Amino acid sequence: MYSGKKHQKYRDGIPVDMEQIKKLFIMPESADKFNEFGNELLDLIHSFFTEKGGIHSSILLPDLAKLFSNTNIPAEPHLLKDILYEIKTKVIAHSVKVGNPYYIGHMTSAVPYFVILLEMIIAALNQNQVKIESAKASTFLEKEFISWMHRIIFMRSPKFYKNNIQNRETVLGNMTLDGTMANMTALLTARNRAFPPDGRFPGIREAGLAEAYKYYGYDRSVIIVSRRGHYSIEKVGRTMGIGNRNIIKVPVDSRNKIDILRLEKTCREIEETNLGGGPRTKIIALVGIAGTTETGNIDNLKEMRKIADRYKTHFHVDAAWGGSVLLADDFRYLFSGIEKADSVTVDAHKLLYAPPSLGMVFFRNGTELKALMHNSNYIIRPDSVDLGRFSLEGSRPFASLKPWATIKIFGKHGFSLIFEHAFELTSVLRGLVEMHCNFEAMNQPELFIFNYRFAPKAIQEKLGKLMLKIQDADSSDEKNNTVKIQYLKRIENINSLLNELNIELHKAIREEDESFVSRTMIDMPQYFYQNCVILRAITINPLTTPEILKEIIEQQNKIGLKIYKTFFSGRFDKL
Amino acid sequence: MYSGKKHQKYRDGIPVDMEQIKKLFIMPESADKFNEFGNELLDLIHSFFTEKGGIHSSILLPDLAKLFSNTNIPAEPHLLKDILYEIKTKVIAHSVKVGNPYYIGHMTSAVPYFVILLEMIIAALNQNQVKIESAKASTFLEKEFISWMHRIIFMRSPKFYKNNIQNRETVLGNMTLDGTMANMTALLTARNRAFPPDGRFPGIREAGLAEAYKYYGYDRSVIIVSRRGHYSIEKVGRTMGIGNRNIIKVPVDSRNKIDILRLEKTCREIEETNLGGGPRTKIIALVGIAGTTETGNIDNLKEMRKIADRYKTHFHVDAAWGGSVLLADDFRYLFSGIEKADSVTVDAHKLLYAPPSLGMVFFRNGTELKALMHNSNYIIRPDSVDLGRFSLEGSRPFASLKPWATIKIFGKHGFSLIFEHAFELTSVLRGLVEMHCNFEAMNQPELFIFNYRFAPKAIQEKLGKLMLKIQDADSSDEKNNTVKIQYLKRIENINSLLNELNIELHKAIREEDESFVSRTMIDMPQYFYQNCVILRAITINPLTTPEILKEIIEQQNKIGLKIYKTFFSGRFDKL
Repeated sequence: MYSGKKHQKYRDGIPVDMEQIKKLFIMPESADKFNEFGNELLDLIHSFFTEKGGIHSSILLPDLAKLFSNTNIPAEPHLLKDILYEIKTKVIAHSVKVGNPYYIGHMTSAVPYFVILLEMIIAALNQNQVKIESAKASTFLEKEFISWMHRIIFMRSPKFYKNNIQNRETVLGNMTLDGTMANMTALLTARNRAFPPDGRFPGIREAGLAEAYKYYGYDRSVIIVSRRGHYSIEKVGRTMGIGNRNIIKVPVDSRNKIDILRLEKTCREIEETNLGGGPRTKIIALVGIAGTTETGNIDNLKEMRKIADRYKTHFHVDAAWGGSVLLADDFRYLFSGIEKADSVTVDAHKLLYAPPSLGMVFFRNGTELKALMHNSNYIIRPDSVDLGRFSLEGSRPFASLKPWATIKIFGKHGFSLIFEHAFELTSVLRGLVEMHCNFEAMNQPELFIFNYRFAPKAIQEKLGKLMLKIQDADSSDEKNNTVKIQYLKRIENINSLLNELNIELHKAIREEDESFVSRTMIDMPQYFYQNCVILRAITINPLTTPEILKEIIEQQNKIGLKIYKTFFSGRFDKL
Repeated sequence: MYSGKKHQKYRDGIPVDMEQIKKLFIMPESADKFNEFGNELLDLIHSFFTEKGGIHSSILLPDLAKLFSNTNIPAEPHLLKDILYEIKTKVIAHSVKVGNPYYIGHMTSAVPYFVILLEMIIAALNQNQVKIESAKASTFLEKEFISWMHRIIFMRSPKFYKNNIQNRETVLGNMTLDGTMANMTALLTARNRAFPPDGRFPGIREAGLAEAYKYYGYDRSVIIVSRRGHYSIEKVGRTMGIGNRNIIKVPVDSRNKIDILRLEKTCREIEETNLGGGPRTKIIALVGIAGTTETGNIDNLKEMRKIADRYKTHFHVDAAWGGSVLLADDFRYLFSGIEKADSVTVDAHKLLYAPPSLGMVFFRNGTELKALMHNSNYIIRPDSVDLGRFSLEGSRPFASLKPWATIKIFGKHGFSLIFEHAFELTSVLRGLVEMHCNFEAMNQPELFIFNYRFAPKAIQEKLGKLMLKIQDADSSDEKNNTVKIQYLKRIENINSLLNELNIELHKAIREEDESFVSRTMIDMPQYFYQNCVILRAITINPLTTPEILKEIIEQQNKIGLKIYKTFFSGRFDKL
C-alpha cells in the first residue's frame, strides 16, 4: 500500500511517512512546533482584526467560487505552513468582518478574545459530552452552567438548585448544537408528553404519530406561535411529522407581540370543534417569543401562560435571542411570565457572545426530559451520569466551557453593562431615525433590534395623508368602503415602490461596504399587514458607538437620496 | 443600573466598567494581552499532554461533582487569569486523556495539533454558515470540501464535479452538527420523498404524517436496518414520527453483517401483505452500515442496493464510522456498493480526526435535498447561495475548515498511512488475543474495532465441549431436542457468569487507570444470540504501538486471573 511512494522525494517536514504523521499529533516532541505555529496564528488573527478596510473583501462571488473549485481531492501531503498561507490569503482575506463595529446587521457580532483562546483548550481536551467515559470534569461543569442559566430564567428556590445541580436523576436542561435543536428538544418533549404511554398504549415514541392520533382520538396536532415565530418552529413541525400547516401562526399587534385575543380565540375554537364532534385537534404547545428574530419584541408571556393552563398544554418560550438578557436584573420586567414557562430556549452564540453555534434548552421541573430518555449498550447506560441519556444529539463538544468562563469573567455585573450599552445604542439609533425626515421607524424596539426604512419626506407625507383619509372613511358606508379600498391600493403601491427603493439602497450600502445592516420583509400591522421591506439594525457589538450609528445613518441618507432622485422620484410622482 | 457600584474598588484588570469590557473584545489595543494569554494557553495545553500519569485523575465522581456545585451565578467580574487558573486546576486536571495512546476504548482519540490551532481561526472569524452575509469564503470552501468527500464516496465523473462543485442549484451534501443530524437529514429526505406532493396533495411536509398515510393509503412506514444499527436510527425514527417499533431490526450473520436473506424476506413479506389487502406498509429506507459502532463490520452494500431497487426504496448508508477510510484506495473493496447509495453519512470527528462533533451527509445526485428546502425573509433567500437553505440546522460554525485543512496536510497518501497503521494494530491485537489461552476473540474485525472477552482457558474448553454436543444433537429427534435445550441453558449460564467476570474486570481496569478499553453487550450470533459482555478496542490513535497493545493484554490477563481466582472459579465449577 503506497509502499512504492515511500521513498519519493518530498520537501522537509511534509508528512510522507508514519513517523512524520505522528509528529503532527500532540506529543512531547512537537512542543516547539506547537508553540511556533501557535504564535504565528495569534499574529495572523490579530492582524485580521487590526487591518483597515471594509467589511467584505472586494472580490466578486463568482471569482471567490473559482478559488474553491478544485475538484480533485489532494493526494499528496502538504506543509502545514503552506496550508496556513493558503488559509490566510484565500479564507481569512475573504471572510466577513462580523466583529467590525460598523457591522450591525445580524445577531453574529464580536466575541471576547479569551473565547477564541478557550477553543484551543476545548479542542485539545477533545472531550465528548455524550458519556462520562470521554468527558469527566466537563460533564459536571456543564451541569453547573445549566443550573445557573436555569436559575436566571425560572428563579426556583435555593433548595431546588442545591438538590438538582449535580443530580443524576434530573435534567434541568441540555446544551444543544444550535437553537433549532433546542426548540426541537423542547417541542419533541411536549409532543411525547401529549401522547404518553398508558396501560394499553406504548406511547407516541414507540407507536408513532398516526397510531397515537388513533388511540387518543385526534385527527391532527398543532403548535401555536405568532407570525413572528422563527422559521425553526415550522422546521421542527415538519420534522416531527405534524406538518407545516399545523403550525398555527397567530397575528401580532402593532408592537409585534402575539395578539392575545386572537390566540385565545384560536384555542377556544379548537376546543369547541373538539367538543362539537368536528375533527379533533390536540394542542401540543403554545410558543411564546422573547424576542422575535426580526423585531426583537417579546410576547406577553404572562397571558400566554394563563391560556396554556386553560387549554392544558405545554408552554414553550423561544428566547433564543433574548434569554441571556435575564442576566441583567434591570431588564427582567420585559420577560415577565417566563419563569412560569415549561421550557425555554436560549442561544449562547447570540447574547452570551459565544461563536456559533451553541443552543440551550431548559425545563422548569427537571423531569420533563425523561420523555426523551434513551440508552444504548456501549455507552449512555441508564444508571450512569452520561449526559447523552437525554439529548437529541449524539456526540457533542465541551462547548459549555465558553459561556461558563464568560459569565465568570464578566459576572452578571459585566453583562448588565453590555446590555445597557446595547440598549442605549438602540435608543440612539431610534432617535436618529425618528428625527430624520427621510427615514421611517418601523418598530418599537425592546431588545436591541431596530427596524426602519428609507422613505423620503415627500413620500412619507403622501403616505400619512392617505392613512388619515382611511381613518376618516366610515367603512359601514358602502360608498366609503369602495373609496377606502382605493386608498388601500394606493398605499400598497407606495409601499411597494418603497420596497424597491430600499432593496436598491441595501445593495448600494453593501457595495459601498463601509457598514452593514440587514434587510427583511415584514407584514406591517400599521400598514394593514402589507409587506414592507425594512432595514434591520442589531446594536449588540460592545465596540459600536453612537458616533458610528450617526455616520451610518448619514451615509444611508446620502446614498438613498441619490438613488431616489436618479431612479425613483419620477415613479413616485405617478402614484 | 448598577451605577452605585461603579466606583467600588476592584483589582486591576477586572472588567468593572464598559471601557474595561471593551478591551476583552477583539481590537487593536488588546494585542499584547491576546498574545500573552495565547502563549500561556499554548503552554498549558502542551503540559497537559506531556504530563505523566494515568488516563483519568484519581478524583471520585462525587468529589468532582462537588467542585462544580456552586448554585449562585457569578455576580461580580473576575480576572481572566484567575479563571484560567480555575480551568487548569478544576477542568484540565480532571479531564479524560482521550489522546493517550493507551486509551483505545472509544472512537474519540488524538487530534492533530494544527486542528487545535485552527479552532482559534474559526472562532476569531466567527462566521455563521447559515448565510453568505456572515460566511463569505467559508461558504465556498465548505462546498469544495463536500465535493471532495462526495467524490471519494460516489466516484461520479469529473464533469459531474466540475458542474456541481460551486453550483448554487445543487447540493452534494451538508456539513451537519453531528452524525445523528446527518442520519436525520438523510432519512427525513427519504421520508419526504416517499410521501411527495402531487396535484391534489401538498406532501408530507405540509400536511403531516397522518394525512400522508391517509392520502397514499398506508397504515405505517418503516426503516429497515440490522440489529447492529446505531441507536441514532431509532432516535430519528422516534423524532420523525414513524415510531420506534417501525424501525425494523434485521438479524446479522456471524460476521455482524445484515443477514441478506432475512432482509429480503422482510421486504417480501411487507410487499405480500400490502398486495394481500393487509395493513399497508411503506418502506421509507433501507439503511446499510459501514461499519457498525460496536464491531466495525460493514454490511453487504451491493446486495442491499439491489434489494432497495427491487422494493423501490431509498438506500442510505450510515458510514459515520468508516466512511473516511475511502480516502485510502486500498480499503475501498470493503465498501463495494457504497457508490450506488442514495445517501451516505460520515463523521469527521471520527476517522478524519476532527474534535467532536462534525457530521456530514452526502447525496448521490445533488438534487435530493430539495425535499428539505426552506427559506425565510431575513436570511436564506431562495435565490441566494446561502447554505442554510437546505440544512436541518440553523446557525452553524465554519467547522469544515478543519477537515479541509487536514486532508490537504495529510493528503490521501497520509490518510492511507494512518489507516494502514490502524489496521495493523487491530491485527496485532487480534493475534495477541487469539494466541492467548485466557481470552476469546468475539468478532472478525474489518475497520479497526476488535471485540474480545476474558475467558479463562478452562471455561473456554467447557464452552467448546457444550457447543460441540449441541452440533451433534439432531434436533429432529424429540428427545435430543430436550437435551439440546439443556445444553443451551448451560451455555447461557456460563456466558452469564463470564459477563459478570468481564464487568468486574472492566471496573478493575478503570481503577488501575493505565489503559482504557470500553465494554458493551452484544447478542452474539455464534452463541445463539445470547447476550455477551465484551471488551471493545478501537485502535485508531496513530501514537498507539503494538508494544502498547501487548502491555494492555498482559495487564488485563493479570487482573482478570486475580479476579477469576478470588471470586469466580468456585462459581464456574458449579456450572
